[in-house]
Amino acid sequence: MLIPAPDVALAEAFLNRLAAETADTPGVTRDAYGGGEERAHKIATEMATRAGLEVTRDFAANLHMVLPGADRSLPALYTGSHLDSVAHGGNLDGAAGVAAGLAVAAGFAKAGIAPPRDLVVLATRAEETVWFPVSFCGARAALGTLPMAALDTRRSDTSRTLAEHMIDCHADPQAIRQARRSIDPAKARAFIELHIEQGPVLEGVNRAVALVPAIAGGPRFREARILGEYAHVGSAPLASRRDAVAAFADLVSQLNEFWRELDGAGRHVLATFGVAQTDRTMHAWSKVAGRFDFTLDIRGTDLDALTAMRRRLAELVGDAATNWGVKVDLGPDTGPQPGFLDAALHARARAAASAVNVPVHIMPSGSGHDALAFHHAGIPTGFLFIRSQNGGHNPDEAMQSKDFEAACRVLAQLAMTL
Amino acid sequence: MLIPAPDVALAEAFLNRLAAETADTPGVTRDAYGGGEERAHKIATEMATRAGLEVTRDFAANLHMVLPGADRSLPALYTGSHLDSVAHGGNLDGAAGVAAGLAVAAGFAKAGIAPPRDLVVLATRAEETVWFPVSFCGARAALGTLPMAALDTRRSDTSRTLAEHMIDCHADPQAIRQARRSIDPAKARAFIELHIEQGPVLEGVNRAVALVPAIAGGPRFREARILGEYAHVGSAPLASRRDAVAAFADLVSQLNEFWRELDGAGRHVLATFGVAQTDRTMHAWSKVAGRFDFTLDIRGTDLDALTAMRRRLAELVGDAATNWGVKVDLGPDTGPQPGFLDAALHARARAAASAVNVPVHIMPSGSGHDALAFHHAGIPTGFLFIRSQNGGHNPDEAMQSKDFEAACRVLAQLAMTL
Repeated sequence: MLIPAPDVALAEAFLNRLAAETADTPGVTRDAYGGGEERAHKIATEMATRAGLEVTRDFAANLHMVLPGADRSLPALYTGSHLDSVAHGGNLDGAAGVAAGLAVAAGFAKAGIAPPRDLVVLATRAEETVWFPVSFCGARAALGTLPMAALDTRRSDTSRTLAEHMIDCHADPQAIRQARRSIDPAKARAFIELHIEQGPVLEGVNRAVALVPAIAGGPRFREARILGEYAHVGSAPLASRRDAVAAFADLVSQLNEFWRELDGAGRHVLATFGVAQTDRTMHAWSKVAGRFDFTLDIRGTDLDALTAMRRRLAELVGDAATNWGVKVDLGPDTGPQPGFLDAALHARARAAASAVNVPVHIMPSGSGHDALAFHHAGIPTGFLFIRSQNGGHNPDEAMQSKDFEAACRVLAQLAMTL
Repeated sequence: MLIPAPDVALAEAFLNRLAAETADTPGVTRDAYGGGEERAHKIATEMATRAGLEVTRDFAANLHMVLPGADRSLPALYTGSHLDSVAHGGNLDGAAGVAAGLAVAAGFAKAGIAPPRDLVVLATRAEETVWFPVSFCGARAALGTLPMAALDTRRSDTSRTLAEHMIDCHADPQAIRQARRSIDPAKARAFIELHIEQGPVLEGVNRAVALVPAIAGGPRFREARILGEYAHVGSAPLASRRDAVAAFADLVSQLNEFWRELDGAGRHVLATFGVAQTDRTMHAWSKVAGRFDFTLDIRGTDLDALTAMRRRLAELVGDAATNWGVKVDLGPDTGPQPGFLDAALHARARAAASAVNVPVHIMPSGSGHDALAFHHAGIPTGFLFIRSQNGGHNPDEAMQSKDFEAACRVLAQLAMTL
């Protein structure tokens, strides 16, 4: 069986054009349903058309770049990822997955070989939650699973609604109100997303590619706060203090200590206090802080470890009241559940990697991705990490050409054999 | 020896007028060298004049309200405090000390009794550091010890210089450039400041008045920061994290634990992280924080405990680097040294309190006050706390009339016997 080589040169030309044309020093800015993302979709359209793919835009302005299969009546194989980025982000997050799909599809087209079924390379929209406070907008719109309320959420920088931004991009928010879809799960054999790792694990185990059986979920508190009492720095003895900073510190320090134990035992769970701040309108070096606001994201794929973290957190909330006389209000839990991806597809991907001699690492994903939307829509979903350097969501994101090619070869093998 | 009763009614009328005429709901705002403080000085001038005191304003717009003594050639006894407040602050911080001086002086005037030496009730300016980043502006100007550079500092709300604000109030910044003074230490027998406690200690020990032998000082870091590395919440395993929030939490939690031991042993030291925040331009719930900014104020009157806290802090800065791979930069130490007030005057105040049957508590002051400026200028200085409720620097500050009167009686006794 002849599997055409992926057109890595085309993928790299695509990524280079993206970097140049969406540059926003430092890094790139491809704002969701805004100028940066539009530009990226325009580049993808041009290059996919030139490579011989059939390009259509759906009502949510997602791109469907189709390589026709031998039997066009069979459910299609979908691949791809998103083209938006965070502000001053890296060029590869999302885009590498679209580039991989283009490389594989263009490789087939160039070689004049049709895979058994259509290969649809998707470029989705608005995956990053920094723009709209909603996950996977484009992908969920395509699948008919985006809640109508999402249309009224406002973009963090412009304060304009998702519906308004969609109209700017010639998309049709009415279609979302009508719960239309552009991808019918019955006509989708599978969705396979490739994505840079954004972390150091593959570097550590010296593998180019990881197969991901599960995507992390867990509690997420975006509006947590500690209420204590402001007091004068020199006049409040320790015993009288209801110090919100001190209570926060104990909570973080002790939750991290508990996490360190679980982590040491190899359990997959992560805890992050990303935003943590006293109240700018009230705080001063000369005051004991009466209020502290923070976010806490706990995630993993180990359900028992997640439960243990929840339990420990509840204890520490109680300790804060006892030890510092403060009230900890965690606010609403907006976190997703972990997603355990399709086991049969995972096995097929493993076999495909083996067939093309790409040794793979098996690891969960700590982050949510468009893949989750396909998984929740009932489509068999697979997810692959490509080794990357310098983390993610920053201008220093990097990926080696040979690692990218290895991942593309696994995808090409799957496209041919699935 | 007949000691005239303090005119508490006048003092209360003064405080009531202040509360009404500088109201800024909630609380009062008496901005330093601004409209609120001007109004307060106008009220003091009117009421002191009506009570028969000689009122003059010095080049820094401090008020000197003089009750002539029997021998006007003797060095005078100074008392008083400041009339500025923080924004939306309480009515009593500072003003209670001026009110006490007025009550005592007016009591003498009403009774037609002259104390042995002039009693000068001062209403100083700009004691609160929230307006200008300089302590005790008015008092230090009067003593000729305000650094010239202070004139160029800018008020936090108006961004105009201290010199400009002084001119608004018909004061003369040139006099400060020439290091003139309106109080000659050689002509000052003593300075005795009365101030509300702003804390719960006197409530706890059930005393109306405290004598203060020492004013706290210690290291103060107003620009401390922790530099780590931003990372993606789902992609950075624990071992790879250089988490600035986690490092901060451990530092605070462990310094507080050490403080708790010292405090339990009765050592006078306080530690406060009043401002603590991730970087608003960079932080997100979805990112491990790469930077954390904070303030740390350590203060006390126990030199050994201060040294021990400094040493523990240095260890914890090292631990943060070891455990989290971050760099803790404490920035400049801008804290004052503790001030140990005049022991002979303390003994005289103790005797005076005993003579008028006011049982006193002995306790250090956690905060700096105008008294420190007089102490550092070489004038024998005493400091008394009046029991107060609901802390300080807030609209709920409260003081009972009988506690105020007890403190005034101690001051009157001192004025007669010193």
